[in-house]
Amino acid sequence: MNEIRTKAHPLSIALAGLGTVGVGVIELLEANREMVEARAGRPLRVVAASARDLGRDRGVDLSALALESDMAALADRHDVDVVVEAVGGAQGPALELARKTLAAGKGLVTANKAMIAHHGLELAQLAAANSASLAFEAAVAGGIPVVKALREGAAANAIERIYGILNGTSNYILSTMETTGADFADVLAEAQAKGYAEADPAFDVDGIDAAHKLAILAAIGFGARIDFPAVATTGIREVRAADIAQARALGFVIRLVGVADCAAGQLLQRVRPCLVPTSHPLAHVTGATNAVVAEGNFVGRLLLQGAGAGAGPTASAIVADLIDIARGTVPPPFSLPAQDLAAMAPADPGDRQGRDYIRFTVTDRPGVLAEITAAMRDAGVSIESLIQHGRANENGSEVLVAMVTHEGLERSVSKALELLGGSESLTAAPLVLPILRD
Amino acid sequence: MNEIRTKAHPLSIALAGLGTVGVGVIELLEANREMVEARAGRPLRVVAASARDLGRDRGVDLSALALESDMAALADRHDVDVVVEAVGGAQGPALELARKTLAAGKGLVTANKAMIAHHGLELAQLAAANSASLAFEAAVAGGIPVVKALREGAAANAIERIYGILNGTSNYILSTMETTGADFADVLAEAQAKGYAEADPAFDVDGIDAAHKLAILAAIGFGARIDFPAVATTGIREVRAADIAQARALGFVIRLVGVADCAAGQLLQRVRPCLVPTSHPLAHVTGATNAVVAEGNFVGRLLLQGAGAGAGPTASAIVADLIDIARGTVPPPFSLPAQDLAAMAPADPGDRQGRDYIRFTVTDRPGVLAEITAAMRDAGVSIESLIQHGRANENGSEVLVAMVTHEGLERSVSKALELLGGSESLTAAPLVLPILRD
Repeated sequence: MNEIRTKAHPLSIALAGLGTVGVGVIELLEANREMVEARAGRPLRVVAASARDLGRDRGVDLSALALESDMAALADRHDVDVVVEAVGGAQGPALELARKTLAAGKGLVTANKAMIAHHGLELAQLAAANSASLAFEAAVAGGIPVVKALREGAAANAIERIYGILNGTSNYILSTMETTGADFADVLAEAQAKGYAEADPAFDVDGIDAAHKLAILAAIGFGARIDFPAVATTGIREVRAADIAQARALGFVIRLVGVADCAAGQLLQRVRPCLVPTSHPLAHVTGATNAVVAEGNFVGRLLLQGAGAGAGPTASAIVADLIDIARGTVPPPFSLPAQDLAAMAPADPGDRQGRDYIRFTVTDRPGVLAEITAAMRDAGVSIESLIQHGRANENGSEVLVAMVTHEGLERSVSKALELLGGSESLTAAPLVLPILRD
Repeated sequence: MNEIRTKAHPLSIALAGLGTVGVGVIELLEANREMVEARAGRPLRVVAASARDLGRDRGVDLSALALESDMAALADRHDVDVVVEAVGGAQGPALELARKTLAAGKGLVTANKAMIAHHGLELAQLAAANSASLAFEAAVAGGIPVVKALREGAAANAIERIYGILNGTSNYILSTMETTGADFADVLAEAQAKGYAEADPAFDVDGIDAAHKLAILAAIGFGARIDFPAVATTGIREVRAADIAQARALGFVIRLVGVADCAAGQLLQRVRPCLVPTSHPLAHVTGATNAVVAEGNFVGRLLLQGAGAGAGPTASAIVADLIDIARGTVPPPFSLPAQDLAAMAPADPGDRQGRDYIRFTVTDRPGVLAEITAAMRDAGVSIESLIQHGRANENGSEVLVAMVTHEGLERSVSKALELLGGSESLTAAPLVLPILRD
């Protein structure tokens, strides 16, 4: 390797957090050092770290590192150029560290999607004001370079729509329900027993984690101020094995999909279980895999797919950001200078055209179908197909009725459900799953 | 938008070639100017162009451009920072222009995969020697940012294998054969009539175009000196409808796949029709779509998919490169400084382990199967399944015999075919299609 580079000033790195991600970064730099430094054009040195328990054996050599028990102290160290934040949490110590690091003019690399979703604009402004680099490739879809693909690879396009499978746990559960025929609760319990799902699975199965990632992608793709509170989020708890079977019979699979689109300066961001046509690439994304689609006005449809989580993929994304920082080539984190990011109003979902799958659970008695179809007619919803499914449960008092609507306004479906709101025929709230456009 | 940026010095661009790609670049810059310049941090101005016929109406306004009939003159113009080469051809005027442009210290952006495959190392060295940017995202897989994904997004990884569907025309033909049951010649003729395939289709259907792209990806992914002559290339002309039907019955589809891997400093690069398991993401890539898979030692398997050709996607990739140049953030074109690129010896394919599909066309007489299976036995090839297919043609003298081997050395299969070389039972050379690992 050439002399100039090996003599170049190293990039000095502090690791906040020595969990699986922090240790993964150390392991990657050890395993791939020569190639990484050749690409970075200079050495990358981890010089300091912080962790709650500094004494624990993590299987990597920490003897050359300055260890701090207070992670905020990493931002003060004069021997540190970049802090890698691998602690997590939208607020608290991670946010304090991020602010201190950027205010000190040091680079910040983070995998913390919650913090970026909630405070990304403030941090981008702070980075710009202090000429510091802020990078968070690892915050979205693990090792898939989707931040870079949107921010740089597709930079020449007006992005029209971004959507994808952004939560591996939910996708694992849905695709396991699909192959086994089991219901949500059973698959979740099994996933928890195997360590694939957290003891408190809310973050994953209620769509919050996917919503964090979607808000970040939307901000980058549309050049918008990040607006996480505007993401309408529905998780997968209400999806039944019967819905998956019904969807399959109609030529669809069910996936938790985050969708963001931008029209007339208005932004629509939603995370919902959707029916995906089996001809669509997302229908073939199974297990814990993530996949993101971006549609640009010149490039057409781009799909990126890969491992959405895990120590290896996350370390891969963090070190890619470190290489960019070492080379001095990090663009503004949301693709536009922070002051140019547009404040976009949320769009009214009622204005949207689409097709829906609607599943009712009803009492098994005469007149129920007439009641439902009358409400649809009165609200102006056109039914493409209707399937009465038979007993929904053991005791036999409940029947499933599923229908697919023709293309129409979402407002009409909401109105139909409103009309049925007080009905004694319905044993539970209807489940509406939008059909993803092919 | 901020004052500093709009006052910034514009990036001045010359377009060599005003065909669909050159015109696409002008159209993109007109349509997306505001967003592109905000991301670039400065204006992008096309100031000059060259074309064979400068007078022809191309539907875009060229009145503000300096027009040169000699494209090499673009490299001499003092008002030009970057030349976009959209002419094509591995040698000749395109190469002359590329050399002159880089020697003058100007940036070069090109979609010319043949030129990069043949002369990429020389041009990278010339760029480094003159501190000029060389960028060719558009040369591989159209608008898919796969060069950037490998060079930067996956930069932290030792890449172990790169493979993909790199030629849209071949994939269109194979997937049409699959859905219609028609044979190669008929589908090709139809594709030519529709303008989906060139009058001389050799470049596409014989795998040369895919081989150009594979050589570029391998050089970037493995940090190697590009070695196009070492790519072993077989096209799709010998694939019959019967092979596709047979593959389907066994759980596979047939795709033209370029595969490069790197082990012990030796590089294996091949473009061949392969059997792809229907569970593999590449099995669902139909029509003119391109898809690239890269496997890294930390990131795992990454898949990128999108439109592999066309004016829009190509312009998208070219302008992404121009934005990088405007921002001053173009890494070395093959991911490592030119002088660090390794000269890798070609690997011996005979050493490879794998499974194959082998199809024989034989005369319909007793003893043929015994002859074939004896040759397999003598060469040490273990047969997993064998299907005698029945009449291969109208006059009924020919029979198809297809088999799938167990995992074994490629050398053994070659030896078995050698043993059968002089046989009068075979009516044509056997077709060997490797089975892609899942």
